[in-house]
Amino acid sequence: MAGYEEGDDYPRIPCDTLRDWVVDIFETCGIGREDSEIVADVLVESDLRGIASHGVPRLRRLYVDRLLNGTIRADAKLTIVRETAATVTFDAGHGLGPLMAYKAMERTIQKARDAGVCLSTVGHSDHFGIAGYYATMALRFPGMAGIAMTNATPLLVPTWGKEAMLSTAPIAAAFPAGEQDPFVLDAATTAVAWGKIEIARRLGATLPEGLAVDEHGQPTTDPFAARALMPLGGLRATSGQKGYGLALLVEMLCSQLSGSLWSKKIVYSGARGQQHADTSHAFIAIDIQAFRPLDEYNASVDEMFATLRNAEPAEYAQRVMIPGDPEAITLADCLERGIALHPSVVEDLRELGEERGVPYPG
Amino acid sequence: MAGYEEGDDYPRIPCDTLRDWVVDIFETCGIGREDSEIVADVLVESDLRGIASHGVPRLRRLYVDRLLNGTIRADAKLTIVRETAATVTFDAGHGLGPLMAYKAMERTIQKARDAGVCLSTVGHSDHFGIAGYYATMALRFPGMAGIAMTNATPLLVPTWGKEAMLSTAPIAAAFPAGEQDPFVLDAATTAVAWGKIEIARRLGATLPEGLAVDEHGQPTTDPFAARALMPLGGLRATSGQKGYGLALLVEMLCSQLSGSLWSKKIVYSGARGQQHADTSHAFIAIDIQAFRPLDEYNASVDEMFATLRNAEPAEYAQRVMIPGDPEAITLADCLERGIALHPSVVEDLRELGEERGVPYPG
Repeated sequence: MAGYEEGDDYPRIPCDTLRDWVVDIFETCGIGREDSEIVADVLVESDLRGIASHGVPRLRRLYVDRLLNGTIRADAKLTIVRETAATVTFDAGHGLGPLMAYKAMERTIQKARDAGVCLSTVGHSDHFGIAGYYATMALRFPGMAGIAMTNATPLLVPTWGKEAMLSTAPIAAAFPAGEQDPFVLDAATTAVAWGKIEIARRLGATLPEGLAVDEHGQPTTDPFAARALMPLGGLRATSGQKGYGLALLVEMLCSQLSGSLWSKKIVYSGARGQQHADTSHAFIAIDIQAFRPLDEYNASVDEMFATLRNAEPAEYAQRVMIPGDPEAITLADCLERGIALHPSVVEDLRELGEERGVPYPG
Repeated sequence: MAGYEEGDDYPRIPCDTLRDWVVDIFETCGIGREDSEIVADVLVESDLRGIASHGVPRLRRLYVDRLLNGTIRADAKLTIVRETAATVTFDAGHGLGPLMAYKAMERTIQKARDAGVCLSTVGHSDHFGIAGYYATMALRFPGMAGIAMTNATPLLVPTWGKEAMLSTAPIAAAFPAGEQDPFVLDAATTAVAWGKIEIARRLGATLPEGLAVDEHGQPTTDPFAARALMPLGGLRATSGQKGYGLALLVEMLCSQLSGSLWSKKIVYSGARGQQHADTSHAFIAIDIQAFRPLDEYNASVDEMFATLRNAEPAEYAQRVMIPGDPEAITLADCLERGIALHPSVVEDLRELGEERGVPYPG
């Protein structure tokens, strides 16, 4: 977000070094080696794409602490509650979100290869990290597109309401192209993710209008007064009710199709917590060849993406991008120069490493 | 949209009277009686829900003129290009959008009853009216949910661009409940629909920031300077790139899955036009019972909807609604008092009725 960038002067750590260390940490929490590698890859991918709010900085509070206190079950297995040729209802058994989501999306893609499409819902799960990870899993297979959604703790205030009731309810989607880079969308249906409010606090910046509300549900531009988020679109006059509607659509597909708690009731209990989060997700995989020959699809998508990427920019801008382009730039930079982590995050990870007997390598 | 309401002093016509007349008009254009009834129902439903920009006011310019000049083919049949148990690629043969879309959604729902879910795409179609109509067709069947999307002519300027390249790309969704009224979303992924700009012109109102751009791609609050629309979210600082991303997701599912023109190339030719529009749509039907027992779904959705509808409103608001509630209020009012049409629209319809030999009854 323009005006909110930070991190250029932070210490950096090579991506592989960080990932290997995260694997070791999860192994000390009772997660097997192979499964720990999956979870570490999901979290580090978030940092690689520049979405620090969902990556390794949350390792302790959201995952390790909660694996150790049992609100996330280390021994959970993903099971199937109901299944047709093109649908699945999964039960994640209160297991580790990224692991359960990875396995569910893997199966969703397999089924789409046979049925053309598969819609799955995952109940009784936990925070799964970035939605974009699961959508882009589809791009590992030729001609496959993926969509991923999740609910989470309440942060979104419905239009005309004052209390947060729905989550940031992200919609992620990934579609391949031929020669062009793919389309990768990962968008909260709130005006911004909560991490943007935290960054504004650290930088002492004023928020644009239409992002946040205070404790009384009144719109505010003060990041320290902000208590909850407005839907994408902001106030009713700028169509915030559409962002609210899209967030509720995500909620229907996640909690209501899977039979899990809806966002208002979800809590990520702290170190002494007792309650399972009961988060839920929804995934769609689409086999493009069920609809159209892949070479024709690739050619027409390439033409469209090239036209958009080469479009004349507005006077105030440098160039037109398509979703996924900014993250691809950050990813290339992080792979070359290492991942930048806030100094306080590094300190926290060092402490965690000592506690778990796996010294932080950066 | 607050501050933009109009129509309370317009002449009104009973819904059934208007619908019967529209049926007669389509019959004079070579559409059979039963098919004309379908198309008339789609158009009048738009007026009933208060979406005048997509209803009978467009009868002549968008449908009748183009049926008569052949850019919409009156004799087109909906055909299937590819099909699996859970997917269909339809070809609308440049037929009447509302008719082709109705028949495609009907088949999509049938297939979802067997497969649990069905994703279909409709190529080589035309303007289909309101997306919400097709999503709500699912509510006629117990435990069925529907999603509908379409592309159209270019109106959305991509983030950082200056030229309109994508369409308003609406996403509509309808999910049933038990005792509560259903969830019915029908949202353009632009900040507003173009009709809102036209209303602001008629009322001489200033636009809120973040809705429209001028001929240079610069943001404007002057409805007369507005030439194209910003994505939902407005500028980059308020996350307009998310609305752009959602519009591109709709475009992928419509034109790129079906093999039709993408929005930048779509034209609804005028009276002397030659080019078929080649609009495309995407539909999803979901059989809730494939995922979860319907009585459990109904109970948990009722609890969630009741909580949202009874939530404490912000100080500046009267009450919290869920998507579909405002349209349901308008619909009830129109059924009781008749549909309000702008005097210039009535004049246009009278003229059309004389030309077609079917006098306008209002």
